[in-house]
Amino acid sequence: MTTAIQDRQSLIATMIQDKAWDKLEALLSKMPAIEVAEALQALEPRKALRVLSVFKMEAQASVFVDLPAKKQEELFNLLDKRRFSKIFQEMPSDKRADFYQSLTATEQAALMPFLSKAIRENVLELSAYPHDTAGGIMNTDFATIRLKMTVSQALEKVRRDAPSGKMLYYIYVVDEQKHLVGFVTLKRLVLAEPTQNVSEILHTEYIHSMITDDREEVARLIEKYDLVAIPILNEYDQLVGIVSHDDAMDVLRKEQSEDLQKIMGIRVADEEAGYLETPVMRHFSKRIVWLVALAAFGIISGLVLHQYEGLLNKLVVLAVYMPMLADTGGNAGSQSSTVVIQALSVGEVKFSHWFKVMLKEASISTMLAICLGVLAFAKVAFLSSATELPSELSLSYVAFVIAVAISLQVISSSIIGALLPLTVKRLGGDPAVVASPAITTIVDITGLMIYFGLASWLLL
Amino acid sequence: MTTAIQDRQSLIATMIQDKAWDKLEALLSKMPAIEVAEALQALEPRKALRVLSVFKMEAQASVFVDLPAKKQEELFNLLDKRRFSKIFQEMPSDKRADFYQSLTATEQAALMPFLSKAIRENVLELSAYPHDTAGGIMNTDFATIRLKMTVSQALEKVRRDAPSGKMLYYIYVVDEQKHLVGFVTLKRLVLAEPTQNVSEILHTEYIHSMITDDREEVARLIEKYDLVAIPILNEYDQLVGIVSHDDAMDVLRKEQSEDLQKIMGIRVADEEAGYLETPVMRHFSKRIVWLVALAAFGIISGLVLHQYEGLLNKLVVLAVYMPMLADTGGNAGSQSSTVVIQALSVGEVKFSHWFKVMLKEASISTMLAICLGVLAFAKVAFLSSATELPSELSLSYVAFVIAVAISLQVISSSIIGALLPLTVKRLGGDPAVVASPAITTIVDITGLMIYFGLASWLLL
Repeated sequence: MTTAIQDRQSLIATMIQDKAWDKLEALLSKMPAIEVAEALQALEPRKALRVLSVFKMEAQASVFVDLPAKKQEELFNLLDKRRFSKIFQEMPSDKRADFYQSLTATEQAALMPFLSKAIRENVLELSAYPHDTAGGIMNTDFATIRLKMTVSQALEKVRRDAPSGKMLYYIYVVDEQKHLVGFVTLKRLVLAEPTQNVSEILHTEYIHSMITDDREEVARLIEKYDLVAIPILNEYDQLVGIVSHDDAMDVLRKEQSEDLQKIMGIRVADEEAGYLETPVMRHFSKRIVWLVALAAFGIISGLVLHQYEGLLNKLVVLAVYMPMLADTGGNAGSQSSTVVIQALSVGEVKFSHWFKVMLKEASISTMLAICLGVLAFAKVAFLSSATELPSELSLSYVAFVIAVAISLQVISSSIIGALLPLTVKRLGGDPAVVASPAITTIVDITGLMIYFGLASWLLL
Repeated sequence: MTTAIQDRQSLIATMIQDKAWDKLEALLSKMPAIEVAEALQALEPRKALRVLSVFKMEAQASVFVDLPAKKQEELFNLLDKRRFSKIFQEMPSDKRADFYQSLTATEQAALMPFLSKAIRENVLELSAYPHDTAGGIMNTDFATIRLKMTVSQALEKVRRDAPSGKMLYYIYVVDEQKHLVGFVTLKRLVLAEPTQNVSEILHTEYIHSMITDDREEVARLIEKYDLVAIPILNEYDQLVGIVSHDDAMDVLRKEQSEDLQKIMGIRVADEEAGYLETPVMRHFSKRIVWLVALAAFGIISGLVLHQYEGLLNKLVVLAVYMPMLADTGGNAGSQSSTVVIQALSVGEVKFSHWFKVMLKEASISTMLAICLGVLAFAKVAFLSSATELPSELSLSYVAFVIAVAISLQVISSSIIGALLPLTVKRLGGDPAVVASPAITTIVDITGLMIYFGLASWLLL
């Protein structure tokens, strides 16, 4: 398949280069919407619009929602509002409301007169919910039937009022007041006898979310129960929308990539553009906060070091191995914090496991410490063989002390790296923010205390 | 909904405590399989088996596949093989093959005689494909129809040979040789007139994968095209299986969490148990490789520092700010590598953008450098006010030089952090492995060269 797509894309590129618009249109009309959208991105707006207009309204809407925001805006500005309203009405309800919210008040006002009352109300209703809630990501493209219907009546109703854009895999059963009673799968409806009653094949134990639920929570339910869609209820238990599996996938993917950014000390913003599109100022503001916070926090390591300036003066060799100490501790701490953060995020580990986690990290890191300690000893013995030392100290003794310090640093960093996310979680914070950079800065301080503490005890 | 689940879970806990098994069984029989599986995990194996046996075979199979591997093994060992074979036959075909592969050769042999020929062949066929390919994650629970059928004939065939476990949202149209001709959606089939021909509602432009395709590639197609399932073809273009959206979600989630581990220098293994379950030795072997590699690489920073021992001897104050230099550079580099790795993984940035990326990082990091430089100056002026300096140097001049070094370090680290993943990608490697720890170690070396280079030029 992938070869077919690649062939097609290079074919499209050639057609655009040759300005073979008719051939291009013929080709595009047979392609999935997302691929047409990708092809249109390479065209300048007027040309893209010409190609788009070849499709049926419904297909135009499918292509339009798959375009990036910037391209949507360009096309919207070019189109007269009557024609655009026809595309707009065919868009999936959630994407339609999102696009509406991206318009300025003036643009919204210009579009409104061309919309039917039903669409207008639908757009305004879906725009009313905060975007990080179930209401903010749900759509209203679902079908309902009544409990008293027979299977054939139900199928008849579905056939009658289902435009092609609706999600029909689950068909929801509601009462007169729109309360959700249960659901039947289209599959079950098709497999049932036409004369059976809907009530006989009804699932009354359904998974659902409330309209104010966090969108990640909604996505996790879809993932956990392997649902195609989940019904969304309002405070009166009325069915007001559904969230589909593909929207859930988007939410979960986004959340995971946000986690990685948080781990790296990048502030996460609400709506993200791509790396190249995001302005420099915005990148700057997302990165500076943690960098400054960590640099300020680093004052503590400066204070620790100041105490040992005398020792450093006497044994400059200690300064030479400070980077090794800091890096090894930071790396070991980052690793243990990462595995614990991941275990926390899938719910496998809880704060109550802290003692178990600590024991585990103590065992793992002791083994790591032995390996890295031996390596450190060899490194000092090799690198500093020509270094002048005070006559009362032998090189192998100094190397031994440094190796012990590195070993202790690996163990303490691993344990700190594991326990810190647990603690932050316990205090109600997001464990992801105390990973890599924060851990590195913290274990730097403890590492310097171990290193110079040990050195002033054993080498002075 | 979530409150309902939580209520239920605390209810179950109470029933287990009170040993109210009859009540527990009554409650479980109304719950989704995944929740029953969660409840069974708290029970000792014999008790769990007793509760499980209350369900119909099909429900027992659904619960069994939702249990963690360890629990599955316990139950398998307790059950006589004839009874287990009944559960086994009802399991989804992909989960069934996975479980079969987890058994020892002796266990496999003990189970085989109780399986029907069809199931036996199906299990062996699905077990034959490498687990990281489409074949390794596909299942065979799909329905097929013929092109010449009418809609009502097609529905009749689907009704006739579809056990409830089959994925019916897409129904595949194949010819006599099982070649995939196209597909119809169940929705379209239901909405069509019974007398229409299948050929009239057929989609011939279908997305598919080949059996040997990488599983992540398959999952990305499902995500990109918002599919419920994707058909898998063999080398003769015969339809041999499907991969469902929930399996794709699992693959993508797994891949993202593996990326994070790679970024933190943790070697990723094939099949993962949870943090607490994984033995210490295994954790150790996953972490040690990168730690040793980075520590060995760190010899270079040791060599650099040795060159400047004389300078350090004269100006111990420089040693005091080495950790600040290392941390700030590491943090800035980790940030820029993270955003570039993410942009690479979604395909937004390519190697050909390297100049654009470099310019962007240069602008962002210059702004970061100014802020962090000012902060560094203030820090040195404040922390080292009591430090003894050679008479020809003023504190503010030393602070200025250190601040300039920090600024240059921020800029070079950001650019290196951005360009290194691009280069690794270009060379065909996985950019995730050169993030955090690797970047930290590399920018340590460049940072020390900048720092001491500048210091020996301006302060000696």
